[in-house]
Amino acid sequence: MSVVVYLGDDEETRDWVDRLRRLLPGRDVRPLDDPGAPEDVAYAVVWAPPAGAIARFPRLRAVVSVGAGIDHVLRDPELPRHIPILRTTGPEMVQRLREYVALHVLAHHRQLAVTDANQARGVWQQIVTPPAQRRRVGVMGLGHIGAQCALTVAALGFDVAGWARSKKALAGIETFAGPEALRPFLARTEILVCLLPLTSETKGILNAGTLGSLPAGSALINAGRGGHVVEADLLAALDSGHLSGATLDVFQTEPLPDRHPFWAHPKIRVTPHIASYIDPGTGAGVVAENILRYEAEGRLPDMADAVRGY
Amino acid sequence: MSVVVYLGDDEETRDWVDRLRRLLPGRDVRPLDDPGAPEDVAYAVVWAPPAGAIARFPRLRAVVSVGAGIDHVLRDPELPRHIPILRTTGPEMVQRLREYVALHVLAHHRQLAVTDANQARGVWQQIVTPPAQRRRVGVMGLGHIGAQCALTVAALGFDVAGWARSKKALAGIETFAGPEALRPFLARTEILVCLLPLTSETKGILNAGTLGSLPAGSALINAGRGGHVVEADLLAALDSGHLSGATLDVFQTEPLPDRHPFWAHPKIRVTPHIASYIDPGTGAGVVAENILRYEAEGRLPDMADAVRGY
Repeated sequence: MSVVVYLGDDEETRDWVDRLRRLLPGRDVRPLDDPGAPEDVAYAVVWAPPAGAIARFPRLRAVVSVGAGIDHVLRDPELPRHIPILRTTGPEMVQRLREYVALHVLAHHRQLAVTDANQARGVWQQIVTPPAQRRRVGVMGLGHIGAQCALTVAALGFDVAGWARSKKALAGIETFAGPEALRPFLARTEILVCLLPLTSETKGILNAGTLGSLPAGSALINAGRGGHVVEADLLAALDSGHLSGATLDVFQTEPLPDRHPFWAHPKIRVTPHIASYIDPGTGAGVVAENILRYEAEGRLPDMADAVRGY
Repeated sequence: MSVVVYLGDDEETRDWVDRLRRLLPGRDVRPLDDPGAPEDVAYAVVWAPPAGAIARFPRLRAVVSVGAGIDHVLRDPELPRHIPILRTTGPEMVQRLREYVALHVLAHHRQLAVTDANQARGVWQQIVTPPAQRRRVGVMGLGHIGAQCALTVAALGFDVAGWARSKKALAGIETFAGPEALRPFLARTEILVCLLPLTSETKGILNAGTLGSLPAGSALINAGRGGHVVEADLLAALDSGHLSGATLDVFQTEPLPDRHPFWAHPKIRVTPHIASYIDPGTGAGVVAENILRYEAEGRLPDMADAVRGY
């Protein structure tokens, strides 16, 4: 019974193979492109596997997504839909997202871009921002990660609301649920943080209509997926002045292509999909533990659902 | 019995005079340069008053510092040393400092300057930073404001220690006290946050010796006073590569003079003394309340001490 690994980058794949071999003694851990006998492969540990790659293994027990999202697995049209998908989170991943969200919410709140531009021009200008209690942050996506990020921002003092597909209860945070609650949620939000999974329902959710529902001067932070954003609509909302700025960690195409207009846009901060990096040092441990636990119990507490899409 | 007001800027002074008139009905609130009968002046509400200005009022009951620090009052050589000094804090001031410290600790932690420089060059480079639990932050100054900032950073996940003149107890935070504990405190600190009051003991405390005691690659955030920093020593520590960066909110001379080397230094972020702005809207309310309470009780819970210097 073997485990195959695919991370996109060959060196990264080898690193994960080496780590998983140590963590799963007795298993035959191999790179996806050298899988041995296909019928022996029980687990595929992957990030954005090539189309058709998973379907080659007739006795696969589960696909393990090296990430919280599963969209990069589901986009394979040949993926057998009955195979369970395990996702990889863990405390470090949640911690990194908490840091990213707190940093960029604070940066928009305190108008860091304006202060930096003033420094570049040698201008001393004291800009007064309200205390966080008078700044409204809205978090889209209230799964485990989204909830922890919303609570982190609330603990910094911000007035936080959250929106999700289904109703959630979070201490001190007003929650909105479902499509009909999206507009009222956006209308009260000055800094919008997208942490949604990418599904057929959320694809393109950050578009002219939704961005236009934010109050004038609002800012966007997208640490969900690039597919959430209709890029032309975002550029239009920034260029019209309706949005004051956007911090983007994820893109339709990654790495963000050379000469993409986001790179040099004065109102866009580009970060290279680092909001929540899973490093092999701890990530491989979480993956190995999840595989062993799934094998023992037949399920995991926070399993993905291929039909639901996350 | 009158109250005189001096904020440096004429327009700001007039704004505070107007607000305090409404908040202290029955008092004669006037700008410092038009004080009426000097013997009627009971309170002087000031930021950095001109030398000799306070000494003109023979029956002054207290000086009210529009700020948490009192160094800008004490630097007047003619200041009568027996006059009590009230300082102005309040929840909004603490909140703003919490935000500033959290923002800039996170920015150094997540290497925002490197990410921004990469964006400017159109470079997609995923830099891996450890989770905050493996990043050591040190806060100098553990009065009410310093303690709240240290707890805020600890709640974000950082490994936080604090240093103060006398021993403090703070939940979850290792504390160091006194001059002999300064080096060990610095040796375990990767991001140093200075929130000290400026006194004869703390003047120039951020110098070649102390900065050299930080581990290589450390960063400095100074939201204390410009006088804490020996500017040439800081520049040398940055230019040698010993320090990775510095975020400075306060300076020997403010506004920071044109052509000062800090403006254009690639490793320095300059913010224009905005870490904790006291805005007149809420600040005047705190000042008025403090004056009334001091008059009723003869003291305030968190009074400054001119001899101690803070």
